[in-house]
Amino acid sequence: MSFESFLTKENFEGYEDPERYKKDWVPRLDKYRADLESAILPEYKITLPEPIEKLQKDQFNPLEYLYEKKLLSDEEKRITELSATELAKEIASGKLKSVTAFKAYARRATICHQFTNCALELFVDEGLERAQMLDEYFEKNGKVIGPLHGVPISLKEQMDYKDKITHGGWVGLLDRIPKKHGATIQILENLGAVFYVRTNQPQTLMHLDSNNNFVGTSRNPFNLGLSSGGSSSGEGSIVAFGGSSLGVGSDIGGSIRAPAAYSGCHGLRPTTRRVALLGGISSGAGQESVVPVAGPMARSLDDIDLFMKHYVNDGNPWQLDQWALPLPWRTVEPPKPESLTIAVMYDDGVVKPTPPIARGLKEVVAKLKNAGAKVIEFKPIRVQEAIDTVNKMYNCDGNYMQKKLLSASGEPLTKLTKWALNYGNGSKDIGVAENRKLNVIRDSLRQEYTDYLNANKVDFILGPAYNNVAPLPEAVYNWSYTALYNILDFPSLSFQTGMFQDPTVDKWGSEHSSYTYRSELEKLELSGYDPELFKGAPIALQLAGRRYFDEELVAAGKTILKVLDVDLLHK
Amino acid sequence: MSFESFLTKENFEGYEDPERYKKDWVPRLDKYRADLESAILPEYKITLPEPIEKLQKDQFNPLEYLYEKKLLSDEEKRITELSATELAKEIASGKLKSVTAFKAYARRATICHQFTNCALELFVDEGLERAQMLDEYFEKNGKVIGPLHGVPISLKEQMDYKDKITHGGWVGLLDRIPKKHGATIQILENLGAVFYVRTNQPQTLMHLDSNNNFVGTSRNPFNLGLSSGGSSSGEGSIVAFGGSSLGVGSDIGGSIRAPAAYSGCHGLRPTTRRVALLGGISSGAGQESVVPVAGPMARSLDDIDLFMKHYVNDGNPWQLDQWALPLPWRTVEPPKPESLTIAVMYDDGVVKPTPPIARGLKEVVAKLKNAGAKVIEFKPIRVQEAIDTVNKMYNCDGNYMQKKLLSASGEPLTKLTKWALNYGNGSKDIGVAENRKLNVIRDSLRQEYTDYLNANKVDFILGPAYNNVAPLPEAVYNWSYTALYNILDFPSLSFQTGMFQDPTVDKWGSEHSSYTYRSELEKLELSGYDPELFKGAPIALQLAGRRYFDEELVAAGKTILKVLDVDLLHK
Repeated sequence: MSFESFLTKENFEGYEDPERYKKDWVPRLDKYRADLESAILPEYKITLPEPIEKLQKDQFNPLEYLYEKKLLSDEEKRITELSATELAKEIASGKLKSVTAFKAYARRATICHQFTNCALELFVDEGLERAQMLDEYFEKNGKVIGPLHGVPISLKEQMDYKDKITHGGWVGLLDRIPKKHGATIQILENLGAVFYVRTNQPQTLMHLDSNNNFVGTSRNPFNLGLSSGGSSSGEGSIVAFGGSSLGVGSDIGGSIRAPAAYSGCHGLRPTTRRVALLGGISSGAGQESVVPVAGPMARSLDDIDLFMKHYVNDGNPWQLDQWALPLPWRTVEPPKPESLTIAVMYDDGVVKPTPPIARGLKEVVAKLKNAGAKVIEFKPIRVQEAIDTVNKMYNCDGNYMQKKLLSASGEPLTKLTKWALNYGNGSKDIGVAENRKLNVIRDSLRQEYTDYLNANKVDFILGPAYNNVAPLPEAVYNWSYTALYNILDFPSLSFQTGMFQDPTVDKWGSEHSSYTYRSELEKLELSGYDPELFKGAPIALQLAGRRYFDEELVAAGKTILKVLDVDLLHK
Repeated sequence: MSFESFLTKENFEGYEDPERYKKDWVPRLDKYRADLESAILPEYKITLPEPIEKLQKDQFNPLEYLYEKKLLSDEEKRITELSATELAKEIASGKLKSVTAFKAYARRATICHQFTNCALELFVDEGLERAQMLDEYFEKNGKVIGPLHGVPISLKEQMDYKDKITHGGWVGLLDRIPKKHGATIQILENLGAVFYVRTNQPQTLMHLDSNNNFVGTSRNPFNLGLSSGGSSSGEGSIVAFGGSSLGVGSDIGGSIRAPAAYSGCHGLRPTTRRVALLGGISSGAGQESVVPVAGPMARSLDDIDLFMKHYVNDGNPWQLDQWALPLPWRTVEPPKPESLTIAVMYDDGVVKPTPPIARGLKEVVAKLKNAGAKVIEFKPIRVQEAIDTVNKMYNCDGNYMQKKLLSASGEPLTKLTKWALNYGNGSKDIGVAENRKLNVIRDSLRQEYTDYLNANKVDFILGPAYNNVAPLPEAVYNWSYTALYNILDFPSLSFQTGMFQDPTVDKWGSEHSSYTYRSELEKLELSGYDPELFKGAPIALQLAGRRYFDEELVAAGKTILKVLDVDLLHK
């Protein structure tokens, strides 16, 4: 079954208008790209070792190259290998200037962009001004303006940024220039963060990948032949590459966890309403069956904790955004491994994991058991039903809003836009009564999973973040491993195992030759797995916990990373 | 314009089936009523001074009668005049037995029922057994089983009660017998409460009144000619009469606050998701545009606080119900009056208040100012739009679920059922895209009100709980004063001012004769105001606060009641 055979044409016919697009929008997109190109400051410009297409074909690893070729000074390397927690501390102690820290990140980010195409907008000059202002404030007052004083943070473009185009991946929104920051950006600015880059995301924001008509796809910092994931695509690349100290993504089906997992960093999808969403663009305004979240991505779980703690407790997002919950972020110490009970989902019953993911999971389980954790097998509960339901929820408005936003420019639809427009009932508005029934199914799922945790005294569910490592560009179809936790609204964390795909090891076992795919989707996802194509891709997993108990989840993640001895900061 | 002229027949045609109803259901309803009648224990049976119809016609005040005729012993009077807080303390100290406390409440409740028709189910025998068990536990263990040990609590029938019919006002659900308690009942039982009465509610639960085909209307304990409000109709009567120490109602448009206000007690509509709703019946399953809440009703705000504190902090509702928030109930001391900034809504622009409410509001404002509070005038923000939107939300499924539940029996539709079926777009399912637009309007309203509070440093909004005191039965049409806070999801509190309607004072002023009604609804609501009909009805008001800051709201309510010198416990 080909990709196309999955699609129903009625679900995306009448969106495109090639003539109007070419006439009204292509020249403006050319200018948009030229502006981005010219925003690369000369001092941070590098000469690529080969043309980018060749590097992509060769599965080039730019992070390795950064280190081998010493593209950073020793001090720049040292600074960009600090956790955000350490960085903030050095700046607050006066040991390090915001400007010095910023310049190191500006270089690393700009190098990252030249390899991975992670940025939609670079404004390093503004970041530098801000860093200078922060240093002046510190000198004058002898204290920081907030707990994130001087920390360089990258932002998914979707969030409203004062006086800057905020298009969310829709060409038709090129004129959308917010008059003020979205609530989360405003809070981070109040806390002292420095902004300088807004990152790539796919058309419609509804891919676990990155293609759009602005700048195309972002690539994986460990293998330029692979995707960086999505929809927080550029955040995956830049955070994993070390081009920012912390990143902010958003997630309605895996859009924080997929890019973090694929690209090689950690990403938290918090429970809904802990991070403000006021001020931003999505096609889901007023959709509350499966609610999007914003959340942090980082190279260290201390930094995820740092972000959430200060964002929630010092940022008080509920004061700006009525929708955010006044639920303080609690300090939770990492538990001892032997106090943990973890249920492992080896296969969700929708798409089984490829060899590197299966290997990663097996090894992590072995190490956890060895460290004393109690590990039981999780028998997936109604996953297919959950995924069918969440897929219907995404577009049960008959794609009304997506159509409106896409048709505004008549822009060409990318492959995975068509895929997601095809979800559920496609272009059919199912009506309110049917939508309510979906919500009832959702609530029964949430209750059943909660009852499972209670009855079995399970603390967390461990499993894949996706059925594969980073996929080839525009070839990620299955959202089941991540979207499950969106419909459940369980906090979930993609984390790195420190392991990488190895073509010599990660081959299908002999039993696979007689494996009968359980669905056409599974076949589509798995039949393209050729070990040679995924060389060196990070192996990540996912941990999920109880609704609103995000603090316990992050703390347990720290315990697991300690058991695995993972350090993403130092190469 | 007559009541009927407001209605569109298409919105409720085809629901009724008189023949099937008469054949299949009327005999069962006769039995239901006979069971209720026979559940009145002989020792608590009283002889009414006149036939009930006469008492209703004469605007009889049964609470006054209870005291004048000394229907309670001195000890029963003393016990039932304790706050729940004091009662729990006396029992926990060993000073008072649960059985003694229970019997006093059983008598007062049964008397209340004989006057006001507040109960759908009485099971005093089971309550007594439970109280005996609690006493035995206390004797054996020297401690209480929980902080509500021995506190008699009345329950709106809608909540699932193990092994008891739970019909929610729909005749077609007479066979619905839950196998376990709803989460909130389970929590209260775990905390030590004693149950013995489940109270009346209207057909469909969507009236601010009480008529149904089970037992008809409940009446006001201060004037049997008037309604006790709804939809937590029986809770209003029984709590205000002192027949239970605490009551639990639910509210999606005013259903806690209206009966509390009309009947003469206090009622809190908490912010959503602080009290569990798992296990219960409503027509709104899966409806989340305007989310229902459960909450306490009491004669003292200390008791509202007591309920919320123990329910949330000791009951941990999120462990039973995934939907409930793990947001602890904070201890907040009542603020000094001079620290309060209160914005007063004298008229919401939809229906202006009748003379007793306008008088009550004016006097309360004068006393608050006198006590040092800062009081400013609140210019209503988009109230009509809010009400139009929330009315559409209620039935934007085209009354799908209400029709299903009503048609199951073919039962006759009561007057106010037709009224609510007529809301918004009536029997038209507006579709998901339109529903999402309503949610966007709602969120913009919430944000605008939040921004108003921030910009003006306003702590609370004070106003009417309804445009009148308790209305005549089946004559409450306007929900605007309460439903505003449902769509905003602001916690809101109906509280008694200690004042009562006085026909000699509460007449329209001379300016009213030249008043032009702003709408047919306003005319319908106000033209029936004849001072002589509302004799002695309690005058209540409503205080609303910031979303999720329920604790501050209840604390401020205590301050206001102290300023007003209100005591509902002692007559």
